[in-house]
Amino acid sequence: MSELTHFDKEGNAIMVDVSAKPVTTRIAIATGKIYVCQEIFERIQRHEIAKGDVLGVARLAGIMATKRTSELIPLCHPLPLTKCEVNFSLHASNNLSTCAEGDDANAECASRSATGKSSYYIQATCLVKTDGKTGVEMEALTGVQIALLTIYDMCKAIDKGMVITDVHLVSKSGGKSGDFRWE
Amino acid sequence: MSELTHFDKEGNAIMVDVSAKPVTTRIAIATGKIYVCQEIFERIQRHEIAKGDVLGVARLAGIMATKRTSELIPLCHPLPLTKCEVNFSLHASNNLSTCAEGDDANAECASRSATGKSSYYIQATCLVKTDGKTGVEMEALTGVQIALLTIYDMCKAIDKGMVITDVHLVSKSGGKSGDFRWE
Amino acid sequence: MSELTHFDKEGNAIMVDVSAKPVTTRIAIATGKIYVCQEIFERIQRHEIAKGDVLGVARLAGIMATKRTSELIPLCHPLPLTKCEVNFSLHASNNLSTCAEGDDANAECASRSATGKSSYYIQATCLVKTDGKTGVEMEALTGVQIALLTIYDMCKAIDKGMVITDVHLVSKSGGKSGDFRWE
Amino acid sequence: MSELTHFDKEGNAIMVDVSAKPVTTRIAIATGKIYVCQEIFERIQRHEIAKGDVLGVARLAGIMATKRTSELIPLCHPLPLTKCEVNFSLHASNNLSTCAEGDDANAECASRSATGKSSYYIQATCLVKTDGKTGVEMEALTGVQIALLTIYDMCKAIDKGMVITDVHLVSKSGGKSGDFRWE
Amino acid sequence: MSELTHFDKEGNAIMVDVSAKPVTTRIAIATGKIYVCQEIFERIQRHEIAKGDVLGVARLAGIMATKRTSELIPLCHPLPLTKCEVNFSLHASNNLSTCAEGDDANAECASRSATGKSSYYIQATCLVKTDGKTGVEMEALTGVQIALLTIYDMCKAIDKGMVITDVHLVSKSGGKSGDFRWE
Amino acid sequence: MSELTHFDKEGNAIMVDVSAKPVTTRIAIATGKIYVCQEIFERIQRHEIAKGDVLGVARLAGIMATKRTSELIPLCHPLPLTKCEVNFSLHASNNLSTCAEGDDANAECASRSATGKSSYYIQATCLVKTDGKTGVEMEALTGVQIALLTIYDMCKAIDKGMVITDVHLVSKSGGKSGDFRWE
Repeated sequence: MSELTHFDKEGNAIMVDVSAKPVTTRIAIATGKIYVCQEIFERIQRHEIAKGDVLGVARLAGIMATKRTSELIPLCHPLPLTKCEVNFSLHASNNLSTCAEGDDANAECASRSATGKSSYYIQATCLVKTDGKTGVEMEALTGVQIALLTIYDMCKAIDKGMVITDVHLVSKSGGKSGDFRWE
Repeated sequence: MSELTHFDKEGNAIMVDVSAKPVTTRIAIATGKIYVCQEIFERIQRHEIAKGDVLGVARLAGIMATKRTSELIPLCHPLPLTKCEVNFSLHASNNLSTCAEGDDANAECASRSATGKSSYYIQATCLVKTDGKTGVEMEALTGVQIALLTIYDMCKAIDKGMVITDVHLVSKSGGKSGDFRWE
Repeated sequence: MSELTHFDKEGNAIMVDVSAKPVTTRIAIATGKIYVCQEIFERIQRHEIAKGDVLGVARLAGIMATKRTSELIPLCHPLPLTKCEVNFSLHASNNLSTCAEGDDANAECASRSATGKSSYYIQATCLVKTDGKTGVEMEALTGVQIALLTIYDMCKAIDKGMVITDVHLVSKSGGKSGDFRWE
Repeated sequence: MSELTHFDKEGNAIMVDVSAKPVTTRIAIATGKIYVCQEIFERIQRHEIAKGDVLGVARLAGIMATKRTSELIPLCHPLPLTKCEVNFSLHASNNLSTCAEGDDANAECASRSATGKSSYYIQATCLVKTDGKTGVEMEALTGVQIALLTIYDMCKAIDKGMVITDVHLVSKSGGKSGDFRWE
Repeated sequence: MSELTHFDKEGNAIMVDVSAKPVTTRIAIATGKIYVCQEIFERIQRHEIAKGDVLGVARLAGIMATKRTSELIPLCHPLPLTKCEVNFSLHASNNLSTCAEGDDANAECASRSATGKSSYYIQATCLVKTDGKTGVEMEALTGVQIALLTIYDMCKAIDKGMVITDVHLVSKSGGKSGDFRWE
Repeated sequence: MSELTHFDKEGNAIMVDVSAKPVTTRIAIATGKIYVCQEIFERIQRHEIAKGDVLGVARLAGIMATKRTSELIPLCHPLPLTKCEVNFSLHASNNLSTCAEGDDANAECASRSATGKSSYYIQATCLVKTDGKTGVEMEALTGVQIALLTIYDMCKAIDKGMVITDVHLVSKSGGKSGDFRWE
């Protein structure tokens, strides 16, 4: 049974020793969503073409945040990143599938039940790459988190009820623990 | 119809002028969840009592991250915080409500369908307070995000499939735009 | 005759005591230019309308840098900024005035003599505002510097010979030393 | 015709993929000037020998800033620097060459016309070195910028009209795009 | 009996709520020593007059570090500092008092017994001031610590056996918990 | 006779050129103490078992600080760390050895003479490891310093008279200057 690796035998937190691991190319992709109201969705669409680019600001914030990851996550190793991208896609969902009552953990459902029609979300995906002794999953997740938080910051004057959700690792490659792919 | 406030008339991004706003007490509370597998959930429960405190590390990371918010969110104002707390609660859910097919955005469902039984999550809540000309919603959300990311970092050796979800503002008070409470 | 204020009587560097100064509204505006070749100038113009916004990235970098000023300038006081804007204007200069021989400190002339025609530059202006005991001239200048450096970074693959020049304070107001206006 | 490299095919800003580039020794040298009034120039000369070393403080600020470059320039890669130097030279210019009327972009001329005699400037040069997959031009330019800004900060109580000018890359070596030398 | 204030009733770490405290002028002074060998002591003395100012570099590092205190000390509140000074004094001690055997925790004694003659140390003192709701003891102590560490860094090529010792708060004033003075 | 390496021939501060040095495994261990009163000592002992873990918070602060070392120590090279640990041991000393009069630099003695009985201290030790061109002594010392400062911060409401003392390098290995071991 695997142990939590960030603790030594006495259970004290440590920055794990990765010195023995080979330097290999490490890639990680993470993704997440922010659910917004229709008004915000449409303004973002419009601004994406003209000046006033919410997603442009969020993209930069996400890229810059990947470089700060080891300052934010206590036991994370500092890594020199070789590549970083943040991409967005806009979704208007008309999914009419039913959800259980009292299922308030489901933002899409809550939105649907509130409006009765559809819900809107922006999906952010962050890819990070390095040559190093340890992976960049945390960098990719941090990029997604901060990009979505930035969209929130730029739109909160219109509606403070946005929800960031479904943030997870999509894939990672390189390293001894093998590849990972989200099912 | 309200405009996006972080852009001037030409649509260029700006750090909004808050100098005319009164200094008042501002409080914001944000929350979010991370879904984990049963093995991780039980290890966290055990370590919460003994040494090797995943939640203790995550709590500190969240508190420290609130102080870095204006470095991470491009158009956020620097604020001297007067109070910050991060709290966690552990949940084992036996909700047997049904979900729609193809609803893979619902982490709780995915977990349920995979195991057929129940799902586990940890909820993080962050409260931030300041006396200032603008609110601390971004600080509270950043605290939640980084706390949950830290739990991910400390447990990812066991399972990389954890999902951070349902991150939203619970409430905020103080300031001219009035109070907000999540419905 | 005025002394350098950042040194005490023994000549040791100090962060000057501003505690006795009143809290007032402080505004500072700084500006500067970057001379670029015709190809870069035209690409920036095109991208300013479409996606791939060099100036959008530079604008954000400038705004974010103002918040880091007290980390970069050793004896600068930390200040909570209340407003920040960075603006750009594009200039194609056809000035045919003569310059002295060997006057290689003059970037505009050098460009003119090289091409025989005209020169191109982008002007960046940064406005910063706070309520504090000391002015924000350094924040405004830092915003201009980093915005211009970012334009350089984004265009250097085309031409590494760009020149950042004529960076100075335009005006500042608030505070006991009175207002300043560039002549 | 070369494209702006910091944007992908859709024109979105990215941190360029440098993983395929070889690790080689990279050196970059950048330089710039700050024009000051006679009083400031003479005080800096005096303090350079005694205690109260404006240039000593500016030198350290420049060196420390090179290490922060990837935090300030959004799409810049983090690099572990192996060497950094900042040097200054003091110049009193008696150049009597004529300049065109209305040529206010020329700080040396403006100074000359104001005083009718000569102008004074301090030149800062920064050398940075690393073993990496990408060059250190931005680090060298950042070092120059912050060193000059620091001189401004330490002398602004005497005169706020100083001008930072003529900041450019002197040379860079290492890397596939070949060497660059300022003409 | 007083409790540790940085923990709530459940014992979880918190950034304590200082919002109810009045804004007053807060001053703190801290001090510490670094014991060095004779060779280092004499080189520092010489360089203090000429160029190559170990103490000048250490002074700046200490001042700059006070501004980073809330990033380093997890539960520390961010504060806008209004004044900061770091001072040094050099001491050659000829104290021939006896010490107990096996008392290797006493650096002065160890040095004395090794050389049989005297020991040398540099004392650093840091004063910090702010107008705020909480004190600046941590800022003053951080300034001392980093100043002494910087002396170590600059001299370690000669001798790695230097000892930083006797770092403590000298005094603090302002605030409800009253004044403190070291006895 | 060895020179101070952080200065060039003119005595100007530089970040030393380490590019010619081989990449090897570098390890450094540093240690230090903080003397506390009996009440603090006993509370730390109790909290070490239950929630409210002063040493847990201090441990994380120390580990996180090692990653910030090159930002704090002006001429220090940025390094990607591969391992970091911070450990504590608690000591109640009943050493009755005599000390010289007026020996107020000796915290252990001062404490003993004040109480007549014994003194209490916590020892912190930090190990840092990297593969690099230069050693990690500064990282290890910074980790100790910040860990001890954090203990001070968390306990200062009870007693502000704590003393941080005896901070020194224990050992370092790797690199051309050979190994070092504290005698």
